[in-house]
Amino acid sequence: GPRKAPPIENNLPCSLEELYKGTTKKMKISRQIADASGKTMPVEEILTIEVKPGWKKGTKITFPEKGNEQPGVIPSDLVFVIDEKPHSVFTRDGNDLVVTKRISLAEALTGCTVNLTTLDGRSLSIPINNVIHPTYEEVVPGEGMPIPKDPSKRGNLRIKFNIKFPTRLSPEQKSGIKKLLAS
Amino acid sequence: GPRKAPPIENNLPCSLEELYKGTTKKMKISRQIADASGKTMPVEEILTIEVKPGWKKGTKITFPEKGNEQPGVIPSDLVFVIDEKPHSVFTRDGNDLVVTKRISLAEALTGCTVNLTTLDGRSLSIPINNVIHPTYEEVVPGEGMPIPKDPSKRGNLRIKFNIKFPTRLSPEQKSGIKKLLAS
Repeated sequence: GPRKAPPIENNLPCSLEELYKGTTKKMKISRQIADASGKTMPVEEILTIEVKPGWKKGTKITFPEKGNEQPGVIPSDLVFVIDEKPHSVFTRDGNDLVVTKRISLAEALTGCTVNLTTLDGRSLSIPINNVIHPTYEEVVPGEGMPIPKDPSKRGNLRIKFNIKFPTRLSPEQKSGIKKLLAS
Repeated sequence: GPRKAPPIENNLPCSLEELYKGTTKKMKISRQIADASGKTMPVEEILTIEVKPGWKKGTKITFPEKGNEQPGVIPSDLVFVIDEKPHSVFTRDGNDLVVTKRISLAEALTGCTVNLTTLDGRSLSIPINNVIHPTYEEVVPGEGMPIPKDPSKRGNLRIKFNIKFPTRLSPEQKSGIKKLLAS
């Protein structure tokens, strides 16, 4: 039989918001098609890709035989590979979203409230009354990425903390802290 | 010409103290030697390895043709490969030594003295008056591993800190800290 041309892969960069909510991407492609006589001519086509909520980087969408047509060869498949654009606030870890908040040592020790805007634009306000140590993680269940197989379920939001220590303390502050933290 | 048997590699585990100070390792080996008639007999031999101060994991010492003798074959080389045994206090990072000290938050904020025994048995006492934050590193120049090419020089000792936060604070402690750390 006729040989088939190897597949053509293209990156499809998506924002984390698009992967969270799902989106429709229309891709304009140019390709050569051949008529019965073997004469080729250029055409433009619009391909529609339904990006589902929760799709991960590396997900492949294949359009069979959408490559250039040439006599005696089966056109190649056109493959789009989902890529995830970096986000300014969240990073993704599987189905979880991870955010790092910079707080002062006083906030770490006396409590703070984390305010966040979710990827679908809602405001979250998470009060934390525990002492926040350097590896503390506050887990907010169900505020992660949708799970593609069951979009009613979602991963977790994990809040990490970068605790800013004072650069120097006065002798009075030091003796006060010694007294306060003596066990 | 006669073919040569492939080299035989053996691990030579050394403690960090041995790699710091240098040591002499005597290795007893058993091998077959052949006489002029081709008759083989077992012999035991002692090989001496001078481990030099600062040698690294992966250093190879080759004893040429110390493998078994058999007619018509050049005996294999015997190769010892330095391996580093884990140490209870120090880890090695190139020519540096790294140690992690667990301290309280009060010590991190008000100062502490790090007491250490070096790999050659000296006592070090390092006072720290800076505020110690979670990624703080105290560098002690010249207290790392010897540098094999110039054993008069040594790498650095790097002291890292694991700051133990209090698990909970009373409302009085919290308000006191808020006052003390208010800028």
